[in-house]
Amino acid sequence: MAMMMKAAVFVEPGRIELDDKPIPDIGPNDALIRVTTTTICGTDVHILKGEYPVAKGLTVGHEPVGIIEKLGSNVQGYREGQRVIAGAICPSFTSYACQDHCSAQDGGSHSHGYKPMGGWRFGNSIDGAQAEYLRVPDAQANLSPVPDGLTDEQVLMCPDIMSTGFAGAESANIRIGDTVAVFAQGPIGLCATAGAKLRGASKIIVVDGIDERLQMARQMGADITLDFRKVDVVAEILKLTGGRGVDASIEALGLQSTFEAALRVLKPGGTLSSLGVYSTDLRIPLDAFCAGLGDHKIVTSLCPGGKERMRRLMDVIASGRVDLGPMVTHRYPLEKIVEAYDLFSHQRDGVLKVAIQAI
Amino acid sequence: MAMMMKAAVFVEPGRIELDDKPIPDIGPNDALIRVTTTTICGTDVHILKGEYPVAKGLTVGHEPVGIIEKLGSNVQGYREGQRVIAGAICPSFTSYACQDHCSAQDGGSHSHGYKPMGGWRFGNSIDGAQAEYLRVPDAQANLSPVPDGLTDEQVLMCPDIMSTGFAGAESANIRIGDTVAVFAQGPIGLCATAGAKLRGASKIIVVDGIDERLQMARQMGADITLDFRKVDVVAEILKLTGGRGVDASIEALGLQSTFEAALRVLKPGGTLSSLGVYSTDLRIPLDAFCAGLGDHKIVTSLCPGGKERMRRLMDVIASGRVDLGPMVTHRYPLEKIVEAYDLFSHQRDGVLKVAIQAI
Amino acid sequence: MAMMMKAAVFVEPGRIELDDKPIPDIGPNDALIRVTTTTICGTDVHILKGEYPVAKGLTVGHEPVGIIEKLGSNVQGYREGQRVIAGAICPSFTSYACQDHCSAQDGGSHSHGYKPMGGWRFGNSIDGAQAEYLRVPDAQANLSPVPDGLTDEQVLMCPDIMSTGFAGAESANIRIGDTVAVFAQGPIGLCATAGAKLRGASKIIVVDGIDERLQMARQMGADITLDFRKVDVVAEILKLTGGRGVDASIEALGLQSTFEAALRVLKPGGTLSSLGVYSTDLRIPLDAFCAGLGDHKIVTSLCPGGKERMRRLMDVIASGRVDLGPMVTHRYPLEKIVEAYDLFSHQRDGVLKVAIQAI
Amino acid sequence: MAMMMKAAVFVEPGRIELDDKPIPDIGPNDALIRVTTTTICGTDVHILKGEYPVAKGLTVGHEPVGIIEKLGSNVQGYREGQRVIAGAICPSFTSYACQDHCSAQDGGSHSHGYKPMGGWRFGNSIDGAQAEYLRVPDAQANLSPVPDGLTDEQVLMCPDIMSTGFAGAESANIRIGDTVAVFAQGPIGLCATAGAKLRGASKIIVVDGIDERLQMARQMGADITLDFRKVDVVAEILKLTGGRGVDASIEALGLQSTFEAALRVLKPGGTLSSLGVYSTDLRIPLDAFCAGLGDHKIVTSLCPGGKERMRRLMDVIASGRVDLGPMVTHRYPLEKIVEAYDLFSHQRDGVLKVAIQAI
Repeated sequence: MAMMMKAAVFVEPGRIELDDKPIPDIGPNDALIRVTTTTICGTDVHILKGEYPVAKGLTVGHEPVGIIEKLGSNVQGYREGQRVIAGAICPSFTSYACQDHCSAQDGGSHSHGYKPMGGWRFGNSIDGAQAEYLRVPDAQANLSPVPDGLTDEQVLMCPDIMSTGFAGAESANIRIGDTVAVFAQGPIGLCATAGAKLRGASKIIVVDGIDERLQMARQMGADITLDFRKVDVVAEILKLTGGRGVDASIEALGLQSTFEAALRVLKPGGTLSSLGVYSTDLRIPLDAFCAGLGDHKIVTSLCPGGKERMRRLMDVIASGRVDLGPMVTHRYPLEKIVEAYDLFSHQRDGVLKVAIQAI
Repeated sequence: MAMMMKAAVFVEPGRIELDDKPIPDIGPNDALIRVTTTTICGTDVHILKGEYPVAKGLTVGHEPVGIIEKLGSNVQGYREGQRVIAGAICPSFTSYACQDHCSAQDGGSHSHGYKPMGGWRFGNSIDGAQAEYLRVPDAQANLSPVPDGLTDEQVLMCPDIMSTGFAGAESANIRIGDTVAVFAQGPIGLCATAGAKLRGASKIIVVDGIDERLQMARQMGADITLDFRKVDVVAEILKLTGGRGVDASIEALGLQSTFEAALRVLKPGGTLSSLGVYSTDLRIPLDAFCAGLGDHKIVTSLCPGGKERMRRLMDVIASGRVDLGPMVTHRYPLEKIVEAYDLFSHQRDGVLKVAIQAI
Repeated sequence: MAMMMKAAVFVEPGRIELDDKPIPDIGPNDALIRVTTTTICGTDVHILKGEYPVAKGLTVGHEPVGIIEKLGSNVQGYREGQRVIAGAICPSFTSYACQDHCSAQDGGSHSHGYKPMGGWRFGNSIDGAQAEYLRVPDAQANLSPVPDGLTDEQVLMCPDIMSTGFAGAESANIRIGDTVAVFAQGPIGLCATAGAKLRGASKIIVVDGIDERLQMARQMGADITLDFRKVDVVAEILKLTGGRGVDASIEALGLQSTFEAALRVLKPGGTLSSLGVYSTDLRIPLDAFCAGLGDHKIVTSLCPGGKERMRRLMDVIASGRVDLGPMVTHRYPLEKIVEAYDLFSHQRDGVLKVAIQAI
Repeated sequence: MAMMMKAAVFVEPGRIELDDKPIPDIGPNDALIRVTTTTICGTDVHILKGEYPVAKGLTVGHEPVGIIEKLGSNVQGYREGQRVIAGAICPSFTSYACQDHCSAQDGGSHSHGYKPMGGWRFGNSIDGAQAEYLRVPDAQANLSPVPDGLTDEQVLMCPDIMSTGFAGAESANIRIGDTVAVFAQGPIGLCATAGAKLRGASKIIVVDGIDERLQMARQMGADITLDFRKVDVVAEILKLTGGRGVDASIEALGLQSTFEAALRVLKPGGTLSSLGVYSTDLRIPLDAFCAGLGDHKIVTSLCPGGKERMRRLMDVIASGRVDLGPMVTHRYPLEKIVEAYDLFSHQRDGVLKVAIQAI
């Protein structure tokens, strides 16, 4: 008889509930992880609301920190009891897409090997991390040991939002001395700000409408904070750059208004790096786009995964270059995850990220 | 008293006429070129129609082939009588934008150094090439000697459409073995096709609705030609790529429909390289954009200029790698340029490019 | 009792012999391939001579074309009887090195994941392709189906020398309009020439001392051939470039003299792309290196592998862009492979590549 | 009669003396700068010793901070009295080399446009900055206004060593999370350390043999300092990286021993970024180079110049990201520059950089 565990399960739009499910079996290339800490992502809220469809009964969550409970027969170089993380994007690394440096769009063994967002499996196409145990597929490629001395909470952002936010700065190809604007300072925007600073931007202008987030942005490296409730953000950024515009802008929310503003503040030849998950068609205004002649670049990035990416991000944490600890504002045991969803989805009490802890 | 010359002048919307103007004076950093061959661009037709505003009385045209008549005192390493071309984009190369590898957006001595499309001066902000003589500013950076053995017509595409079309392939970062789709096979689209082949694409799929252009596309390197009047182009390209989509698509027309199709045929992680001059806002459909999570890149390019760019393009012609000669379908003396505009703007008689020749 | 097969085995320096060995067993992530065609590489000659050490009894060879005989239980999306190739470099694609875009230096499950040349396994660290059957490890990542209509010989260069030669052009970052010099026109140098042409080089200057190879080079895209027995190659290339030097040079032999010449013909700011396997320390002359101030780049490349790389290379063949068929100058059945080694290692009879065919 | 000024002049090997020279005349594209602060570079010491030949009578020095005294007639967008700097590399920006993104190797109006180190003019091919006045050629491209609030000493490193050191990190293509080794922590090595940190390296290991420099290195961002007098540096770095090697190493001295060590500590696939000025041929050991099969890159960089580069570097200073102020250890008036040379060339008194101030 299968051993049972607790897991946060998508029941129907509006309902994610804690349920009993069997602890997963694993195959030869898998690992079983006992999850010690995980968190809730904005995407999970989309799932909760039914805006992003997943199968009923699926365990949600894609940001695991845990301990290896069991290793498949083909998985080498790890040991049971080892502390590890795995990326939200957990690709096979064997597909055509992965070998072509596009592992987030992994189509696995499909004949052509590409699938939009196919690298995202946890809490999307397979059971996820908001549970006592998690099956990690292609474990050899995805388990990344946590360096000694780092706590669960210190590495909790690595699987998704740190990787995503940093990818925003990387895809924007930020160079030493760049001026950068970041639109929205939720968890991902804050990580994008930290990433822009790490890439050498010398002037980082951030935009949000919540005081606590603008304050936190300064801790993450923002030089100038703009409150869109108080100033005309586009006009102000153009003024701050002497009319030139920024070298790169990062969109971290997913709205037409932020996308458009991010384009309008770009210098000719600049890059708009888009991280937001949109829910409507986007409009590119003709004038902001110089009718197609402005040498603009618009780049989107899905959170990179894999053990090498996780290793790098944890190294950044270990080096003390960035401290994302202050972003964990609340803590709940897994048993109370439904309460945590309630708080997080309503953005109450200044919440940024909620740590969900094993009991 | 100033010597006079013939020049095609923008009079008012609907009227470009041949007029008498003084032969330009030159300053210490300029050169005076006697134009031996030039051509008419689609952009000139926009000017003619009043869709792109220029000053009344301006000499139009931006694709000069000619002979150095006179050199400013600071211009070194050239000699009078030498055959040269200069790019449609004719930047200062001293501005901040130029030094930051964005010379098409040259803001000159402006404090911040950027100006949208600022590198385009001929027939836009200063007198252009559809005249007997042309003043070339910043001549040291822009005059490029024509190699012996190349005719005027062989290098006539270098200043603009060859540079533009190739930039489409370069900005798409086409690699050996890529599959590429090119939307529209007018002169620029044909050059994009040739550029994609030169970059090593192994399957080039082109789209147009005019038989002659689809035929010409095969000469330029197209492997598969699709007539949008006869097939559902997006469905067909997805079928041709086994459902994967193309590595890169190049938009060479400037319409919502081609832009959108170019996005829909992209593989996740692919690049849409846009060359068209748009006249409306653009819409990015949510599904084609994977809600922002498809690792897509949208890149626009304005025709690169400068003598090094011109030198490279002429080397490509001289090597025989590409023969753009067949694209010159009609020839007119400068005196009959109004007739040439009439033919070209109405796309009569299978016209691709018209050579305008000195009398 | 194990079924037996013929295999070319390294016995001791100076002796590679055909022997009977058991047909390999396969594990869940492996495939068994019946080899229909393979070839002998210059590296195999180094093994034969004892210059590159491998274990006694190892089956040599790393360029397989064959038919899937059996698939491991985890390998999906293929079928038995399918025609496939696998790269000479056959990485795990799960290691840190592989995820960091350095799969040829794959350290597998080793804690840090890097090993010099670790991606090269066939005929190096595991049994190779000069046999009736071959075990392909990590088959999901490495088996690449041969497109219908391509013969064994047409794809025989993909696993190694085409991938290597093209990598020489790719690592040199050759751009449209570049002038390139390629030193040595053996099989790899010839492929580098073809690769330089595919990347858009407009002037390709090649150097060798064998007439047949210089002739073959013209078929592969060389514009100018120089015989080092007859001219001072460095002086000639500088003359051909007006004193400037080439944008990129490719070394395809592995000697101090070719390495040094490749550096001396570079323009300041140029790239030396090195493919040769050296057997001595290298010397960088102070003057050729501008004392370290010439913005030079020296880049080495090991043959990229994996099924995506193989797919691309076969697409290039299928497109007709390149025809490497003429490089197969001789054919032997596997039974006579010792004779083939004798011919190939002594470079008799104008040999370029020898096809070794299943009986 | 020409107005006279004081200038440090190369007399003969072993002698640089302060002399009277006419204040330079300027042409239409030049500017005349009154130098308020400059400094002495290691290269100037090579000139002093006769190891790097310059014309007798030449004014030395290439790191100017000053005030615009006079502008040529073609120079626009500046005003007399404005505080500016110009780069040690002061290119024309009109040559083929400059337009091909290689401005440090600027050949000016030479037919092919390339010259090794040709962008370095001050104190090399034209009179330099260790004088009361300096003629800046191609002033439109090279004068960069100093932001309000920055002192002369704060921007004194921008023209050369900050640009050079940062180029070392940029050419190494350092990414977020990289481990980097920097060999030698003189002024340029210290700037390379600061540059590596700005690019996001998470572990920076530096090597020197002088305590004060190792201490200063920590201020610039070093995580680990190694004293080559006390440890086997190569062994130690391999140990610190778990046997893997570093992602990138930066050579900042110009010796065989540091070059070789920088190669030996590289991971396969890593980049050696070389900044040193060598005075002997270099040897690449076969084993450290994996016989040419290690996917190694060796890249050299000459200090980038131009007003955009200077603007960026001053922005970095203004942002407070880096404080190079502590590197100015000594100050002398121009009148005592011979004393300053004596101190600096003998590396007495813990000297790092000497500010030479206008009287």
